[in-house]
Amino acid sequence: MQPSLDALRDVLDSECLLTDADSLQQYGKDWTNQYTPTPLAIALPKSTEQVVSIVEWANDNSVAIVPSGGRTGLSGGAVATSGELVIALDKMNQVLSFEASTQQVTCQAGVITEQLQQYALDNELYYPVDFASSGSSQIGGNIATNAGGIKVIRYGLTRDWVMGLTVVTGKGEVLNLNAGLIKNATGYDLRHLFIGSEGTLGIITEATIKLTRQPTNLTVLLLAIPELDKVTSLLNAFQKEIDLTAFEFFSEEAMTKVMTHHELPRPVETQAPFYCLLEFDATSEDILEKALSCFESGLEEEYILDGVMSQSQQQADELWKYREYISETISARRPYKNDISVTPDKVSEFLSRVDAIVAKEYPEFEVIWFGHIGDGNLHLNILAPEEMDYAEFTQACEQVNPLIFDVLKELGGSISAEHGVGLLKKPYLNYSRSEAEISYMKGIKATFDPNNIMNPGKLF
Amino acid sequence: MQPSLDALRDVLDSECLLTDADSLQQYGKDWTNQYTPTPLAIALPKSTEQVVSIVEWANDNSVAIVPSGGRTGLSGGAVATSGELVIALDKMNQVLSFEASTQQVTCQAGVITEQLQQYALDNELYYPVDFASSGSSQIGGNIATNAGGIKVIRYGLTRDWVMGLTVVTGKGEVLNLNAGLIKNATGYDLRHLFIGSEGTLGIITEATIKLTRQPTNLTVLLLAIPELDKVTSLLNAFQKEIDLTAFEFFSEEAMTKVMTHHELPRPVETQAPFYCLLEFDATSEDILEKALSCFESGLEEEYILDGVMSQSQQQADELWKYREYISETISARRPYKNDISVTPDKVSEFLSRVDAIVAKEYPEFEVIWFGHIGDGNLHLNILAPEEMDYAEFTQACEQVNPLIFDVLKELGGSISAEHGVGLLKKPYLNYSRSEAEISYMKGIKATFDPNNIMNPGKLF
Repeated sequence: MQPSLDALRDVLDSECLLTDADSLQQYGKDWTNQYTPTPLAIALPKSTEQVVSIVEWANDNSVAIVPSGGRTGLSGGAVATSGELVIALDKMNQVLSFEASTQQVTCQAGVITEQLQQYALDNELYYPVDFASSGSSQIGGNIATNAGGIKVIRYGLTRDWVMGLTVVTGKGEVLNLNAGLIKNATGYDLRHLFIGSEGTLGIITEATIKLTRQPTNLTVLLLAIPELDKVTSLLNAFQKEIDLTAFEFFSEEAMTKVMTHHELPRPVETQAPFYCLLEFDATSEDILEKALSCFESGLEEEYILDGVMSQSQQQADELWKYREYISETISARRPYKNDISVTPDKVSEFLSRVDAIVAKEYPEFEVIWFGHIGDGNLHLNILAPEEMDYAEFTQACEQVNPLIFDVLKELGGSISAEHGVGLLKKPYLNYSRSEAEISYMKGIKATFDPNNIMNPGKLF
Repeated sequence: MQPSLDALRDVLDSECLLTDADSLQQYGKDWTNQYTPTPLAIALPKSTEQVVSIVEWANDNSVAIVPSGGRTGLSGGAVATSGELVIALDKMNQVLSFEASTQQVTCQAGVITEQLQQYALDNELYYPVDFASSGSSQIGGNIATNAGGIKVIRYGLTRDWVMGLTVVTGKGEVLNLNAGLIKNATGYDLRHLFIGSEGTLGIITEATIKLTRQPTNLTVLLLAIPELDKVTSLLNAFQKEIDLTAFEFFSEEAMTKVMTHHELPRPVETQAPFYCLLEFDATSEDILEKALSCFESGLEEEYILDGVMSQSQQQADELWKYREYISETISARRPYKNDISVTPDKVSEFLSRVDAIVAKEYPEFEVIWFGHIGDGNLHLNILAPEEMDYAEFTQACEQVNPLIFDVLKELGGSISAEHGVGLLKKPYLNYSRSEAEISYMKGIKATFDPNNIMNPGKLF
């Protein structure tokens, strides 16, 4: 028997509790798109207090909760497949305060990433965490998955920008964690525990985020690379001299697909098996000269075959397209995605070994490599032959996963670099975390959520 | 009855289990120096495996453990006052590996901070976490207290440099946490839970630490400031233009004491109630010009009275002495220390309000203010009149603590910015952390240390 929603109707405005089929469908899934949504209802609270009441109701009625942000996740962390109540933060989308002297902004969890980025620009500051889904993803969701993206090499992960959190735990208690303090040595930093917890400990309702100075002259180098082995040398050579803001990588297959799909010209004359896109802030002539000198050494020592450097912001944006358009270009083919990482020194070895596995196991599949190689994060996208049944294709990919993850385990890597675990990667968690670690994680969850109502079945 | 140490003698080499009175005295206390050490024995393990055996023995024999690093702590986090077994990491002091391409070094927890700093320099890199006790403090202890220090404004806390940890939990299980990965979204980041846990969850035995590029031209500005209210304007004006690596503050009382004690000349002609020391890396002429222009605006707008800028590394070192010598200068007077923080925008208000409390409550005591004002961290040092009994003085200070901490609580500050909680600040934890937070912390501790053998009585 379904629990009665009557008590919830007393808490929420009538337009804030949805049970129509369209809403259940819309709010019950994320971008993973592999699960059938079957939520009980959708709650759209307007305050932390309302979230508390909902969590209390859920505890009283033994209803599971799925916290829901922009639902741009790719691991099924925000899907409701088992009659859960979805708590969507869409109506908690206000910036609450801004303090210029500390460069800190406090906002509700439902603020869209792009909205925060724009707010920073309006205040002559910069929020540097950026990724493909920033137009839809919400700050609360970013924090719950510790979102990374394209600027991690210079600016770190979402974790590095969170100065305070307001959360409602699985017990329905409100915690104000750290409140913007830079130095605070008073016991366990529960803020860091909630960052990356995928909604399994509680719901993030507000966050205090640090902003920073804007870059002044972002400059892009697009380089053609002869072989995988050269990528690490390239990264080292540049990092020794300048602070890179991005170091991205993609294969000729990815390049060709983007050029065809978007009718773009080849950006460098020389065709090569791989390309790297480097970005840096050329705040002085000196930095520009150092970058050029690295480029010239690379040509001489033949770990660079060819390259082009942007002379304006517009040209920089043009060059970024070859990297940024990859995901969208191949999305119609519904690629099977693995988002994996190793430490950057092991990237070449890992790429070669996985490439060999993939070539052997998927001879008939197309493989599109790209990723944030500067931080060891690779996106392995497998494309099915056009005529192949999708379920059969997915199953084939899943059978190869253990081979890839065995290599990953041997190299001490991560089975999910920035997409989280959710439902999709749960079967593989033990490749990256030991049995003891998983057991401690479960103990922590039981402390914050003794009735196991917060996003149960996700993560572990 | 004391438990038999026989089983421990099978685990440890004979010179690694100490029970003589001198050793008990030496290893049983830290720099807090307010507690009488009464440890059961001192264990000096040489490997993570030996630490496991000791923790297993302690669980079997219901013996409490005090993990011990350089014992430079100021909150009694590493004192053994109740017959505990001290596990000192002194013999685990080796750098284990270094990877140039990732700039990561893996070392044992007993490596001294200065040793790591020197190791970085030898490899043309930089470990930027630095503080007064870096010649004695150990990496493991730094991590267990999330040590901060003088460069936090630019380089962050110890937390920001820890890429991986090996820990032995209170259950005696070894966890390898994160292993140097930059991106790893596979559940709760237990690494961050152990950072700042003050030895209450387990023992850190190894750490992977990130290094960074060396600064090239550190330049110091020492400025005379007319009043507290101007400090925030000063900080904002400089931070808008350049990346400061330090922004320190001290009072004329501190300045006078250092000049007298060390026979140093007055560094700027104008005597002022307060001084600020700014440091930045003048990597280009442009940055130097921006700093000079901020300085000139400050003189014009009268939030700076006078100032001097270093022209060489030697001059920079000379100017640092006026700030760095403060602690040592007053140490013979055994100051009563409060290490407190607020967000930087509230520093002026907090300073004024606490100054008023102190003037009213301690009319006969000398008050020495200094601190890392760029990150909101103030060190309030109270000096007793020379003839006063020390116990009476301490008691008087403790009676005023609640008045200061009430202001701190109202402003959302921290009762321990970087010294940790230990035994000394435990009575005040509830000024900075809610009852609910403390209860969750206890739940987490019970998960990692069900028999409560890890540093019991510390923190809460």
